[in-house]
Amino acid sequence: MTSQTYPAKQHLLKTAKNLGADTGVIFVRGGDILTHPDSDTEYEFHQDSNFYYLTGVKEPAFAAALDIASGTAILFVNSVSADEAVWIGVPPSLDDYRATHGFDQAHYTADIASVIAELNPAQIYVLPHHSTTQLGKLLLASVPVDTEKLITAVHEARVFKDDHEIAVMRKANQISGDAHVQLMHKARVGMNEAELRGQFVGLVLSQGCDYEAYGSITARGRNAAILHYTKNNMQLDSDQDMILVDAGGTLKNYASDITRTWPLGAKFSPKCRDIYQIVLDMQKAVIAACVPHKQWEDMHILSNRVAAEGLLKVGILKGDIDSIMKNFVVGYFMPHGIGHLIGIDTHDVGGYPTGTERINVPGLRYLRARREMLPRMAFTVEPGLYFVDAILADAKANPDVAKHIDFDMVAKYRSVGGVRIEDNIVITETGNDNLTSCPKEIAEIESIRASAYA
Amino acid sequence: MTSQTYPAKQHLLKTAKNLGADTGVIFVRGGDILTHPDSDTEYEFHQDSNFYYLTGVKEPAFAAALDIASGTAILFVNSVSADEAVWIGVPPSLDDYRATHGFDQAHYTADIASVIAELNPAQIYVLPHHSTTQLGKLLLASVPVDTEKLITAVHEARVFKDDHEIAVMRKANQISGDAHVQLMHKARVGMNEAELRGQFVGLVLSQGCDYEAYGSITARGRNAAILHYTKNNMQLDSDQDMILVDAGGTLKNYASDITRTWPLGAKFSPKCRDIYQIVLDMQKAVIAACVPHKQWEDMHILSNRVAAEGLLKVGILKGDIDSIMKNFVVGYFMPHGIGHLIGIDTHDVGGYPTGTERINVPGLRYLRARREMLPRMAFTVEPGLYFVDAILADAKANPDVAKHIDFDMVAKYRSVGGVRIEDNIVITETGNDNLTSCPKEIAEIESIRASAYA
Repeated sequence: MTSQTYPAKQHLLKTAKNLGADTGVIFVRGGDILTHPDSDTEYEFHQDSNFYYLTGVKEPAFAAALDIASGTAILFVNSVSADEAVWIGVPPSLDDYRATHGFDQAHYTADIASVIAELNPAQIYVLPHHSTTQLGKLLLASVPVDTEKLITAVHEARVFKDDHEIAVMRKANQISGDAHVQLMHKARVGMNEAELRGQFVGLVLSQGCDYEAYGSITARGRNAAILHYTKNNMQLDSDQDMILVDAGGTLKNYASDITRTWPLGAKFSPKCRDIYQIVLDMQKAVIAACVPHKQWEDMHILSNRVAAEGLLKVGILKGDIDSIMKNFVVGYFMPHGIGHLIGIDTHDVGGYPTGTERINVPGLRYLRARREMLPRMAFTVEPGLYFVDAILADAKANPDVAKHIDFDMVAKYRSVGGVRIEDNIVITETGNDNLTSCPKEIAEIESIRASAYA
Repeated sequence: MTSQTYPAKQHLLKTAKNLGADTGVIFVRGGDILTHPDSDTEYEFHQDSNFYYLTGVKEPAFAAALDIASGTAILFVNSVSADEAVWIGVPPSLDDYRATHGFDQAHYTADIASVIAELNPAQIYVLPHHSTTQLGKLLLASVPVDTEKLITAVHEARVFKDDHEIAVMRKANQISGDAHVQLMHKARVGMNEAELRGQFVGLVLSQGCDYEAYGSITARGRNAAILHYTKNNMQLDSDQDMILVDAGGTLKNYASDITRTWPLGAKFSPKCRDIYQIVLDMQKAVIAACVPHKQWEDMHILSNRVAAEGLLKVGILKGDIDSIMKNFVVGYFMPHGIGHLIGIDTHDVGGYPTGTERINVPGLRYLRARREMLPRMAFTVEPGLYFVDAILADAKANPDVAKHIDFDMVAKYRSVGGVRIEDNIVITETGNDNLTSCPKEIAEIESIRASAYA
């Protein structure tokens, strides 16, 4: 870690700069604790992503403001009554909060309206999903509140990660990658998918992660062909199967998102190895191509071309590669996008800058980002190939696509289920920095898997 | 487990009986998936508790109805489009759902209004927090909807657990209890509270639990005096400390809620042992007293009397025991209630039947249930003693209380932090059945702890 203090003020100032305003006040609210309906059971609290970005505050019900002209950063602390303190502990003082979070001032949330009124703002900028009630009726009646501009400004700030963020994301990747390796060491036929998911969660929480970044997937064999498989409750019953593990921990509110696919036996079966090698080639080709100023959507197209070459070689596809590409044939085997921005949110904000439209063809349709790659952007690179019956039926029904597919070969490979390999990278000045260091080469994986049966 | 099929229909009929109506239709909706604001990250889905009770359905966005006169149970299945099926898998058929969940009919949610209209109900009963939109404008305009009676009927049904529920809760307790024992075997000075919480979660998820029943507490030393301590991020730095672990897994939507407190060294320190023994005596006395037809609040008072005897013996309290009881002195050391109903919710419904008021004295004030104990009610029994500075300051400021406390002895025992021991019991015809079998005797715990340092 490069710094102990979260760079809240830098994030506020960066956002103000994106806003393009010289005066006015930015006002943001933290998330509140939600309870389940007709119950006092709380949803696990995750801080509002934009609020965390601008403050580094993990507690619920705080708020913050920036006086743009003076650059004064103000933290509003939710006060804790003596009665509440018995249950949750005595909180730090206002000044402790101010210093720990690197703000210029700290007040209690009860004073939001008066503190902001004293700044005499000509304009208040808020996020569209944040309540303005705490600004008070008087202030709301006298000062115009803009609910549109701030969100784009914060999102664009969040797209470009600073050193603190990159260090945290690297650490989140290291913890999560280590957990993936632990699963590779321990998984044996006879266990259940739930044990692998449970062990993963246990390992990342034990190492200080806040929570799972998203619902983990531990999908063996054919379950890997269900893209959002989260049941994770089937027996690992065959050493001919692979397991697809898509799981990442969130550390200090920054997500990691890693997928590894590996054999449940000590070695890849020949069919699994064929498909795995193609996906690995896709991923390496894309990572090598991730350099500043290229377009993200071209990475998707590149992954499809490498897949087409590989699928032609093993005989699943046939015919001319340009015709295969023109007819989006690979999209029937990789129905998702090559990756997405990642940061505080797993699917991070800013993927489609204002005015950018989605491309409505198989695969590209689901692409979560479409923009020029620039230094300090963080992406997942997650090519995959899957044998999804329903999609392959669509492919069979489309003559331009079907003519390129050998469905006998598809039937032969169907039991493979699916393969995905996913790393998290940050674009640098000259290329990219891969934050995910856990093994993905066939020889490395087979060496680890041998230990599970040693 | 006594049965593979969840007794949905029995729960619907039991609820209808509580409702006291011969005709009309009960209509309930399942929960929906929530996403975090300005993000596509989903909150972990937990089914609406009342809906789960009445249906056994874990999927979001289903609904159900009971035609009271005929006893016909109808399940409404949320249909999955071909596009969605690619991502989440091909769902079971309507009839599969009907049979698996033990309903008489199954339809899609799109047909809710027409299916219920055909029953020609004179009255529809819904829960106050459930939307009625799916009933449709026509039906809502022609049939009166009661939003008040059903909730009490369901809550009263949920208070009395059937064999299926008890079997699931026993299993949830066994899995969670085993995880507690694992922590006792593994914890060593030098580890972090986060590792214990992480390992606990990993263990219960690995054994098939759905999620943590509530935010686990792993509080070492003085942190145990923070009753809702959930930071769980401090180093286990002294073998003179104990750790309080309050953690339970939810299995098949039924919670377990277990607390154990044990030494971080191989043995209890003399001070820790003193306090631990008192809490253990409190718990055993209460469990022995939990028999049908006694009042739950009397269990709290009993725990306080046993505590008073123990605290007098070690010299923390002084004076006459009846005066100690009359002045609620023990409430300053045990500021929470003796326990609560438990079931689908950790703090389960039905604790205060209509017309029952809270008792506004220390300790009893926070009691989550006040009613006659009857067979098939499930309770936690969770006495505790804590040295909370703020509460002890209140005690010192109250002469009637302060005269019974030796504050020099309090200062001597302050480092103990706190002790809680919590089991889950079910009231039987003749007494109770303790679902929690994990060790709590000093000799058992020290024998396990010795293995951590062996």
